[in-house]
Amino acid sequence: MKFSSKLIEDAVDVFAQLPSIGKKSALRLVLHMVNRDVTFTKEFAEALQNLRENIKECQHCFSLSDESICNICKDPHRLKNVVCVVESIRDVMAIEDTGQFSGKYHVLGGVISPLEGVGPDQLTVDELISRVEQEGIEELIMAISPTIDGETTIYYLSKKLEGKDVRISTIARGISFGGELEYADGLTLGKSISSRLPYQTNQER
Amino acid sequence: MKFSSKLIEDAVDVFAQLPSIGKKSALRLVLHMVNRDVTFTKEFAEALQNLRENIKECQHCFSLSDESICNICKDPHRLKNVVCVVESIRDVMAIEDTGQFSGKYHVLGGVISPLEGVGPDQLTVDELISRVEQEGIEELIMAISPTIDGETTIYYLSKKLEGKDVRISTIARGISFGGELEYADGLTLGKSISSRLPYQTNQER
Repeated sequence: MKFSSKLIEDAVDVFAQLPSIGKKSALRLVLHMVNRDVTFTKEFAEALQNLRENIKECQHCFSLSDESICNICKDPHRLKNVVCVVESIRDVMAIEDTGQFSGKYHVLGGVISPLEGVGPDQLTVDELISRVEQEGIEELIMAISPTIDGETTIYYLSKKLEGKDVRISTIARGISFGGELEYADGLTLGKSISSRLPYQTNQER
Repeated sequence: MKFSSKLIEDAVDVFAQLPSIGKKSALRLVLHMVNRDVTFTKEFAEALQNLRENIKECQHCFSLSDESICNICKDPHRLKNVVCVVESIRDVMAIEDTGQFSGKYHVLGGVISPLEGVGPDQLTVDELISRVEQEGIEELIMAISPTIDGETTIYYLSKKLEGKDVRISTIARGISFGGELEYADGLTLGKSISSRLPYQTNQER
Protein backbone atom coordinates (compact mmCIF):
# COMPACT_ATOMS: atom_id res chain seq x y z
CA MET A 1 0.00 0.00 0.00
CA LYS A 2 1.40 3.38 -1.05
CA PHE A 3 0.96 6.39 1.19
CA SER A 4 1.37 9.93 0.02
CA SER A 5 1.58 11.02 3.67
CA LYS A 6 4.24 9.92 6.16
CA LEU A 7 1.92 10.83 9.06
CA ILE A 8 -0.76 8.45 7.81
CA GLU A 9 1.79 5.74 7.07
CA ASP A 10 3.20 5.91 10.60
CA ALA A 11 -0.25 5.79 12.18
CA VAL A 12 -1.29 2.84 9.99
CA ASP A 13 1.92 1.01 10.88
CA VAL A 14 1.31 1.19 14.62
CA PHE A 15 -2.36 0.20 14.28
CA ALA A 16 -1.46 -2.76 12.07
CA GLN A 17 0.78 -4.11 14.85
CA LEU A 18 -2.29 -4.87 16.91
CA PRO A 19 -3.67 -8.42 16.66
CA SER A 20 -6.25 -9.09 13.91
CA ILE A 21 -5.85 -5.62 12.37
CA GLY A 22 -4.42 -5.57 8.84
CA LYS A 23 -3.24 -2.57 6.83
CA LYS A 24 -6.63 -1.88 5.21
CA SER A 25 -8.49 -1.99 8.52
CA ALA A 26 -5.76 0.14 10.08
CA LEU A 27 -6.18 2.76 7.35
CA ARG A 28 -9.94 2.79 7.90
CA LEU A 29 -9.45 3.37 11.64
CA VAL A 30 -6.82 6.05 11.07
CA LEU A 31 -9.02 7.95 8.59
CA HIS A 32 -11.90 7.68 11.04
CA MET A 33 -9.70 9.46 13.58
CA VAL A 34 -8.75 12.15 11.09
CA ASN A 35 -12.42 12.78 10.32
CA ARG A 36 -13.32 13.11 13.98
CA ASP A 37 -12.69 16.00 16.28
CA VAL A 38 -9.09 16.45 17.42
CA THR A 39 -10.12 15.93 21.06
CA PHE A 40 -11.15 12.36 20.31
CA THR A 41 -7.63 11.34 19.30
CA LYS A 42 -6.27 13.20 22.32
CA GLU A 43 -8.59 11.33 24.69
CA PHE A 44 -7.88 8.06 22.90
CA ALA A 45 -4.11 8.45 23.20
CA GLU A 46 -4.32 9.62 26.80
CA ALA A 47 -6.56 6.77 27.91
CA LEU A 48 -4.12 4.22 26.46
CA GLN A 49 -1.01 5.86 27.90
CA ASN A 50 -2.69 6.35 31.25
CA LEU A 51 -3.63 2.66 31.26
CA ARG A 52 -0.22 1.40 30.24
CA GLU A 53 1.69 3.55 32.72
CA ASN A 54 -0.56 3.07 35.72
CA ILE A 55 -2.02 -0.42 35.45
CA LYS A 56 -0.77 -2.77 38.15
CA GLU A 57 -0.91 -6.45 38.92
CA CYS A 58 -2.96 -7.13 42.06
CA GLN A 59 -0.43 -8.40 44.59
CA HIS A 60 -2.99 -10.79 45.98
CA CYS A 61 -4.81 -12.42 43.03
CA PHE A 62 -2.57 -11.29 40.10
CA SER A 63 -5.43 -9.81 38.15
CA LEU A 64 -4.92 -6.38 36.58
CA SER A 65 -5.81 -3.54 38.88
CA ASP A 66 -5.69 0.22 39.25
CA GLU A 67 -4.09 -0.17 42.69
CA SER A 68 -1.79 -2.66 44.33
CA ILE A 69 -4.80 -4.65 45.60
CA CYS A 70 -7.76 -5.02 43.21
CA ASN A 71 -11.38 -4.12 43.94
CA ILE A 72 -12.48 -7.75 44.11
CA CYS A 73 -9.81 -8.71 46.67
CA LYS A 74 -10.69 -5.62 48.71
CA ASP A 75 -14.45 -6.25 48.66
CA PRO A 76 -15.58 -7.37 52.18
CA HIS A 77 -18.88 -8.72 50.83
CA ARG A 78 -17.26 -11.42 48.73
CA LEU A 79 -16.68 -14.92 50.06
CA LYS A 80 -13.09 -15.47 51.15
CA ASN A 81 -13.28 -19.24 51.31
CA VAL A 82 -14.14 -19.91 47.65
CA VAL A 83 -11.54 -18.99 45.05
CA CYS A 84 -11.94 -19.28 41.32
CA VAL A 85 -8.69 -20.16 39.54
CA VAL A 86 -8.50 -18.68 36.02
CA GLU A 87 -5.97 -18.18 33.25
CA SER A 88 -6.29 -14.43 32.69
CA ILE A 89 -8.21 -11.29 33.55
CA ARG A 90 -10.41 -11.86 30.49
CA ASP A 91 -11.83 -14.91 32.24
CA VAL A 92 -12.35 -12.90 35.46
CA MET A 93 -14.42 -10.42 33.47
CA ALA A 94 -16.38 -13.13 31.68
CA ILE A 95 -17.27 -14.78 35.01
CA GLU A 96 -18.10 -11.45 36.67
CA ASP A 97 -20.52 -10.75 33.82
CA THR A 98 -22.51 -13.88 34.66
CA GLY A 99 -23.21 -12.61 38.19
CA GLN A 100 -23.09 -16.26 39.39
CA PHE A 101 -19.96 -16.08 41.48
CA SER A 102 -19.42 -14.17 44.70
CA GLY A 103 -16.03 -15.53 45.79
CA LYS A 104 -12.55 -14.34 44.93
CA TYR A 105 -10.16 -15.10 42.10
CA HIS A 106 -6.65 -16.29 41.46
CA VAL A 107 -5.16 -15.48 38.05
CA LEU A 108 -2.58 -18.04 36.97
CA GLY A 109 -1.28 -15.97 34.07
CA GLY A 110 -1.71 -18.84 31.60
CA VAL A 111 -1.72 -22.64 31.58
CA ILE A 112 1.08 -25.17 31.63
CA SER A 113 2.07 -25.74 28.01
CA PRO A 114 5.17 -27.82 27.25
CA LEU A 115 4.87 -26.96 23.53
CA GLU A 116 4.97 -23.23 24.20
CA GLY A 117 7.60 -23.61 26.90
CA VAL A 118 5.29 -22.52 29.73
CA GLY A 119 6.00 -24.38 32.96
CA PRO A 120 4.55 -23.96 36.46
CA ASP A 121 7.37 -21.52 37.30
CA GLN A 122 6.01 -18.95 34.84
CA LEU A 123 2.58 -19.14 36.46
CA THR A 124 1.43 -18.01 39.92
CA VAL A 125 1.24 -21.60 41.20
CA ASP A 126 3.39 -21.10 44.31
CA GLU A 127 1.36 -18.04 45.22
CA LEU A 128 -1.84 -20.09 44.92
CA ILE A 129 -0.43 -22.79 47.25
CA SER A 130 0.54 -20.08 49.77
CA ARG A 131 -2.95 -18.62 49.62
CA VAL A 132 -4.50 -22.05 50.26
CA GLU A 133 -2.19 -22.55 53.24
CA GLN A 134 -2.70 -19.10 54.74
CA GLU A 135 -6.22 -17.94 53.96
CA GLY A 136 -8.41 -20.85 55.03
CA ILE A 137 -9.69 -21.40 51.48
CA GLU A 138 -12.25 -24.23 51.47
CA GLU A 139 -12.82 -24.60 47.76
CA LEU A 140 -10.87 -23.90 44.60
CA ILE A 141 -12.99 -23.76 41.45
CA MET A 142 -10.83 -24.50 38.42
CA ALA A 143 -12.41 -22.25 35.78
CA ILE A 144 -9.84 -23.13 33.14
CA SER A 145 -10.55 -23.68 29.45
CA PRO A 146 -11.06 -27.44 28.86
CA THR A 147 -8.18 -27.85 26.43
CA ILE A 148 -5.38 -30.38 26.79
CA ASP A 149 -3.10 -27.77 28.38
CA GLY A 150 -5.93 -26.64 30.64
CA GLU A 151 -6.60 -30.20 31.81
CA THR A 152 -2.86 -30.72 32.40
CA THR A 153 -2.78 -27.59 34.53
CA ILE A 154 -5.76 -28.68 36.62
CA TYR A 155 -4.16 -32.12 37.13
CA TYR A 156 -0.85 -30.54 38.12
CA LEU A 157 -2.53 -28.23 40.62
CA SER A 158 -4.58 -31.08 42.12
CA LYS A 159 -1.38 -33.07 42.67
CA LYS A 160 0.38 -30.08 44.25
CA LEU A 161 -2.57 -29.55 46.59
CA GLU A 162 -2.90 -33.19 47.63
CA GLY A 163 -3.10 -33.52 51.38
CA LYS A 164 -4.15 -29.90 51.88
CA ASP A 165 -7.53 -29.20 53.41
CA VAL A 166 -9.18 -27.81 50.27
CA ARG A 167 -11.88 -29.08 47.94
CA ILE A 168 -11.08 -28.84 44.23
CA SER A 169 -13.91 -28.50 41.74
CA THR A 170 -14.08 -27.77 38.04
CA ILE A 171 -16.70 -25.77 36.21
CA ALA A 172 -19.32 -28.02 34.63
CA ARG A 173 -18.46 -29.10 31.13
CA GLY A 174 -21.22 -27.09 29.58
CA ILE A 175 -18.43 -25.62 27.52
CA SER A 176 -17.46 -27.81 24.60
CA PHE A 177 -14.02 -29.43 24.65
CA GLY A 178 -11.38 -27.39 22.87
CA GLY A 179 -13.49 -24.25 23.28
CA GLU A 180 -12.19 -20.95 24.62
CA LEU A 181 -13.66 -19.89 27.94
CA GLU A 182 -13.80 -16.18 27.17
CA TYR A 183 -16.04 -16.69 24.11
CA ALA A 184 -18.67 -18.75 25.89
CA ASP A 185 -22.06 -17.04 26.24
CA GLY A 186 -22.97 -15.75 29.69
CA LEU A 187 -25.77 -18.26 30.27
CA THR A 188 -23.61 -21.31 29.57
CA LEU A 189 -20.73 -19.93 31.58
CA GLY A 190 -22.97 -18.98 34.51
CA LYS A 191 -24.56 -22.44 34.49
CA SER A 192 -21.17 -24.10 34.36
CA ILE A 193 -20.17 -22.21 37.51
CA SER A 194 -23.32 -23.03 39.47
CA SER A 195 -23.24 -26.75 38.53
CA ARG A 196 -19.51 -27.27 39.13
CA LEU A 197 -18.29 -30.81 39.91
CA PRO A 198 -15.76 -32.22 42.38
CA TYR A 199 -12.44 -32.77 40.62
CA GLN A 200 -11.51 -36.38 39.79
CA THR A 201 -8.29 -37.56 38.18
CA ASN A 202 -8.58 -39.87 35.17
CA GLN A 203 -7.71 -42.87 37.34
CA GLU A 204 -10.66 -42.21 39.64
CA ARG A 205 -13.28 -41.81 36.89
CA MET B 1 -19.23 -6.09 30.46
CA LYS B 2 -18.00 -5.52 34.02
CA PHE B 3 -14.53 -4.15 34.62
CA SER B 4 -12.73 -4.32 37.93
CA SER B 5 -10.33 -1.66 36.66
CA LYS B 6 -11.31 1.88 35.70
CA LEU B 7 -8.13 2.21 33.61
CA ILE B 8 -9.06 -0.81 31.50
CA GLU B 9 -12.66 0.33 31.23
CA ASP B 10 -11.64 3.76 29.94
CA ALA B 11 -9.24 2.28 27.40
CA VAL B 12 -11.85 -0.22 26.18
CA ASP B 13 -14.42 2.57 25.88
CA VAL B 14 -12.25 4.66 23.58
CA PHE B 15 -11.26 1.67 21.44
CA ALA B 16 -14.88 0.57 21.11
CA GLN B 17 -15.75 3.96 19.61
CA LEU B 18 -13.78 3.05 16.50
CA PRO B 19 -15.78 1.55 13.62
CA SER B 20 -16.18 -2.25 13.56
CA ILE B 21 -14.57 -2.69 16.99
CA GLY B 22 -16.88 -4.01 19.71
CA LYS B 23 -16.24 -4.25 23.44
CA LYS B 24 -14.75 -7.75 23.29
CA SER B 25 -12.35 -6.89 20.48
CA ALA B 26 -11.48 -3.65 22.27
CA LEU B 27 -10.62 -5.57 25.44
CA ARG B 28 -8.41 -7.94 23.44
CA LEU B 29 -6.51 -5.01 21.91
CA VAL B 30 -6.19 -3.25 25.25
CA LEU B 31 -4.83 -6.37 26.98
CA HIS B 32 -2.40 -6.83 24.09
CA MET B 33 -1.08 -3.36 24.86
CA VAL B 34 -0.76 -4.12 28.55
CA ASN B 35 1.22 -7.26 27.75
CA ARG B 36 3.61 -5.41 25.46
CA ASP B 37 6.43 -3.13 26.38
CA VAL B 38 5.45 0.31 27.65
CA THR B 39 7.27 1.97 24.72
CA PHE B 40 4.84 0.41 22.24
CA THR B 41 1.85 2.21 23.75
CA LYS B 42 3.89 5.40 23.88
CA GLU B 43 4.79 5.17 20.19
CA PHE B 44 1.23 4.19 19.31
CA ALA B 45 -0.27 7.18 21.13
CA GLU B 46 2.33 9.57 19.76
CA ALA B 47 1.89 8.44 16.14
CA LEU B 48 -1.87 9.03 16.38
CA GLN B 49 -1.61 12.40 18.09
CA ASN B 50 1.11 13.50 15.71
CA LEU B 51 -1.11 12.51 12.79
CA ARG B 52 -4.22 14.20 14.09
CA GLU B 53 -2.51 17.44 15.02
CA ASN B 54 -0.36 17.83 11.91
CA ILE B 55 -2.31 16.30 9.05
CA LYS B 56 -3.47 18.87 6.52
CA GLU B 57 -5.82 18.98 3.58
CA CYS B 58 -3.92 19.61 0.35
CA GLN B 59 -5.04 23.08 -0.73
CA HIS B 60 -4.93 22.00 -4.33
CA CYS B 61 -6.49 18.52 -4.60
CA PHE B 62 -8.06 18.19 -1.09
CA SER B 63 -6.35 14.90 -0.36
CA LEU B 64 -4.74 14.48 3.06
CA SER B 65 -1.16 15.67 3.21
CA ASP B 66 1.73 16.34 5.56
CA GLU B 67 2.14 19.80 4.09
CA SER B 68 -0.18 22.40 2.58
CA ILE B 69 0.42 20.96 -0.91
CA CYS B 70 0.59 17.16 -1.20
CA ASN B 71 3.42 15.13 -2.76
CA ILE B 72 1.35 14.16 -5.80
CA CYS B 73 0.39 17.76 -6.62
CA LYS B 74 4.03 18.81 -6.17
CA ASP B 75 5.45 16.02 -8.36
CA PRO B 76 6.69 17.59 -11.66
CA HIS B 77 6.77 14.17 -13.37
CA ARG B 78 3.03 13.66 -13.18
CA LEU B 79 0.70 14.71 -16.00
CA LYS B 80 -1.05 17.98 -15.25
CA ASN B 81 -3.71 17.65 -17.94
CA VAL B 82 -5.35 14.43 -16.68
CA VAL B 83 -7.11 14.56 -13.32
CA CYS B 84 -8.74 11.64 -11.57
CA VAL B 85 -11.81 12.66 -9.55
CA VAL B 86 -12.33 10.48 -6.46
CA GLU B 87 -14.45 10.42 -3.32
CA SER B 88 -11.74 10.12 -0.67
CA ILE B 89 -8.04 9.61 -0.01
CA ARG B 90 -8.68 5.86 0.32
CA ASP B 91 -9.47 5.83 -3.38
CA VAL B 92 -6.31 7.83 -4.15
CA MET B 93 -4.28 5.17 -2.34
CA ALA B 94 -6.09 2.32 -4.07
CA ILE B 95 -5.40 3.84 -7.51
CA GLU B 96 -1.79 4.68 -6.65
CA ASP B 97 -1.29 1.04 -5.68
CA THR B 98 -2.24 -0.06 -9.21
CA GLY B 99 0.60 2.01 -10.75
CA GLN B 100 -1.66 2.60 -13.80
CA PHE B 101 -2.22 6.31 -13.40
CA SER B 102 0.33 9.10 -13.71
CA GLY B 103 -1.93 12.16 -13.63
CA LYS B 104 -3.17 14.16 -10.68
CA TYR B 105 -6.19 13.83 -8.38
CA HIS B 106 -9.13 15.77 -7.13
CA VAL B 107 -10.77 14.55 -3.91
CA LEU B 108 -14.47 15.43 -3.74
CA GLY B 109 -14.84 14.53 -0.08
CA GLY B 110 -17.83 12.26 -0.75
CA VAL B 111 -20.66 11.92 -3.27
CA ILE B 112 -23.95 13.75 -3.63
CA SER B 113 -26.45 11.88 -1.47
CA PRO B 114 -29.89 13.40 -0.89
CA LEU B 115 -30.71 10.67 1.65
CA GLU B 116 -27.72 11.53 3.78
CA GLY B 117 -28.13 15.24 3.25
CA VAL B 118 -24.94 15.65 1.23
CA GLY B 119 -25.28 18.24 -1.51
CA PRO B 120 -22.73 19.68 -3.96
CA ASP B 121 -21.97 22.48 -1.46
CA GLN B 122 -20.44 20.01 0.99
CA LEU B 123 -18.12 18.69 -1.71
CA THR B 124 -15.20 20.34 -3.49
CA VAL B 125 -17.23 20.80 -6.71
CA ASP B 126 -16.59 24.55 -7.12
CA GLU B 127 -12.88 23.98 -6.59
CA LEU B 128 -12.91 21.32 -9.31
CA ILE B 129 -14.62 23.72 -11.75
CA SER B 130 -11.99 26.39 -10.96
CA ARG B 131 -9.20 23.89 -11.59
CA VAL B 132 -10.72 22.95 -14.95
CA GLU B 133 -10.94 26.64 -15.90
CA GLN B 134 -7.47 27.61 -14.72
CA GLU B 135 -5.16 24.63 -15.19
CA GLY B 136 -5.77 23.56 -18.77
CA ILE B 137 -7.06 20.15 -17.70
CA GLU B 138 -7.88 18.10 -20.81
CA GLU B 139 -9.46 15.07 -19.21
CA LEU B 140 -11.31 14.33 -15.99
CA ILE B 141 -11.50 10.63 -15.10
CA MET B 142 -14.47 9.99 -12.83
CA ALA B 143 -13.13 7.22 -10.57
CA ILE B 144 -16.22 7.15 -8.39
CA SER B 145 -17.88 4.02 -6.98
CA PRO B 146 -20.66 2.98 -9.38
CA THR B 147 -23.47 3.29 -6.87
CA ILE B 148 -26.64 5.33 -7.40
CA ASP B 149 -25.16 8.27 -5.49
CA GLY B 150 -21.91 7.92 -7.41
CA GLU B 151 -23.71 7.96 -10.77
CA THR B 152 -25.74 10.99 -9.65
CA THR B 153 -22.54 12.80 -8.76
CA ILE B 154 -20.92 12.04 -12.13
CA TYR B 155 -24.07 13.23 -13.92
CA TYR B 156 -24.16 16.43 -11.85
CA LEU B 157 -20.50 17.16 -12.57
CA SER B 158 -20.93 16.49 -16.29
CA LYS B 159 -23.79 19.01 -16.40
CA LYS B 160 -21.76 21.60 -14.46
CA LEU B 161 -18.86 21.15 -16.89
CA GLU B 162 -20.97 21.35 -20.05
CA GLY B 163 -19.50 23.80 -22.52
CA LYS B 164 -16.06 23.70 -20.92
CA ASP B 165 -13.16 22.39 -22.95
CA VAL B 166 -12.63 19.16 -21.01
CA ARG B 167 -13.21 15.49 -21.81
CA ILE B 168 -15.06 13.52 -19.15
CA SER B 169 -14.43 9.79 -18.85
CA THR B 170 -15.41 7.17 -16.31
CA ILE B 171 -13.35 4.21 -15.21
CA ALA B 172 -14.37 1.05 -17.05
CA ARG B 173 -17.10 -0.85 -15.35
CA GLY B 174 -14.86 -3.74 -14.46
CA ILE B 175 -16.07 -3.09 -10.96
CA SER B 176 -19.45 -4.63 -10.27
CA PHE B 177 -22.36 -2.27 -9.74
CA GLY B 178 -22.99 -1.45 -6.11
CA GLY B 179 -19.40 -2.40 -5.26
CA GLU B 180 -17.05 -0.28 -3.19
CA LEU B 181 -14.08 1.11 -5.10
CA GLU B 182 -11.58 0.78 -2.27
CA TYR B 183 -12.14 -2.96 -1.91
CA ALA B 184 -11.59 -3.80 -5.59
CA ASP B 185 -8.46 -5.84 -6.29
CA GLY B 186 -5.53 -3.99 -7.83
CA LEU B 187 -5.73 -5.77 -11.20
CA THR B 188 -9.41 -4.94 -11.81
CA LEU B 189 -8.97 -1.38 -10.60
CA GLY B 190 -5.86 -0.88 -12.75
CA LYS B 191 -7.63 -2.30 -15.81
CA SER B 192 -10.65 -0.10 -15.17
CA ILE B 193 -8.39 2.97 -15.25
CA SER B 194 -6.58 2.02 -18.46
CA SER B 195 -9.79 1.12 -20.34
CA ARG B 196 -11.81 4.12 -19.22
CA LEU B 197 -14.77 5.21 -21.40
CA PRO B 198 -16.08 8.61 -22.54
CA TYR B 199 -18.95 9.70 -20.29
CA GLN B 200 -22.48 9.43 -21.71
CA THR B 201 -25.66 10.46 -19.98
CA ASN B 202 -28.52 7.96 -19.89
CA GLN B 203 -30.29 9.83 -22.70
CA GLU B 204 -27.33 9.40 -25.02
CA ARG B 205 -26.80 5.69 -24.39
